[in-house]
Amino acid sequence: MAEDRVHPELFIRLFLSRNEMIGPGKARLLQLIDETGSISAAGRAMGMSYKRAWSLVETMNAMFSSPLVESSRGGTKGGGAALTDTGAEVLRLYRLIEEQAASASATSVEALKGLMGQ
Amino acid sequence: MAEDRVHPELFIRLFLSRNEMIGPGKARLLQLIDETGSISAAGRAMGMSYKRAWSLVETMNAMFSSPLVESSRGGTKGGGAALTDTGAEVLRLYRLIEEQAASASATSVEALKGLMGQ
Repeated sequence: MAEDRVHPELFIRLFLSRNEMIGPGKARLLQLIDETGSISAAGRAMGMSYKRAWSLVETMNAMFSSPLVESSRGGTKGGGAALTDTGAEVLRLYRLIEEQAASASATSVEALKGLMGQ
Repeated sequence: MAEDRVHPELFIRLFLSRNEMIGPGKARLLQLIDETGSISAAGRAMGMSYKRAWSLVETMNAMFSSPLVESSRGGTKGGGAALTDTGAEVLRLYRLIEEQAASASATSVEALKGLMGQ
């Protein structure tokens, strides 16, 4: 399920500043834009309105020194979209952070789960 | 500021099951209960109603094989509260997971921040 992939066991949200953050939702949106070549299709796959997906892309584009997504707006389908080099690098680094965090904490996570009922 | 401590740079929420999770808010509530000896005082320090703090404690108590917080309900101040051994261990492990995750990903986090504007 798409929803499960948005909420991995270890959910990481990185606060880049007080009001700027990247987490599983934005990372998945970037990944789906890369896969589908479309902001609207990516948003739809996440159950998100076109307006919401665009708003998130604009937020991310403004967070970094250059845009993460380039798009040709217009046309009945909303135009095409692709990750820029910066966008691909942000996605790669976010996934790496997730992997490093999960790997380093795996033993502690198992210990915590061992305290659960069942 | 208390709020900053609830949202560290690397915000970790651990999904123990589809509907059971622990993150910075619950960890901070446990820590404040330990420090203040009171669920109401701990909740107040987080800007949370007494009812909300109690509800979170009940949720956490039900998530693990034994309660995390023991309390003597009653009295005009709402009685005293303390972490159980399980509660102290859950808090310790959550903080350890945070530290391990932050330490392992520090270089990647810096690389990601290096892509930000200014």
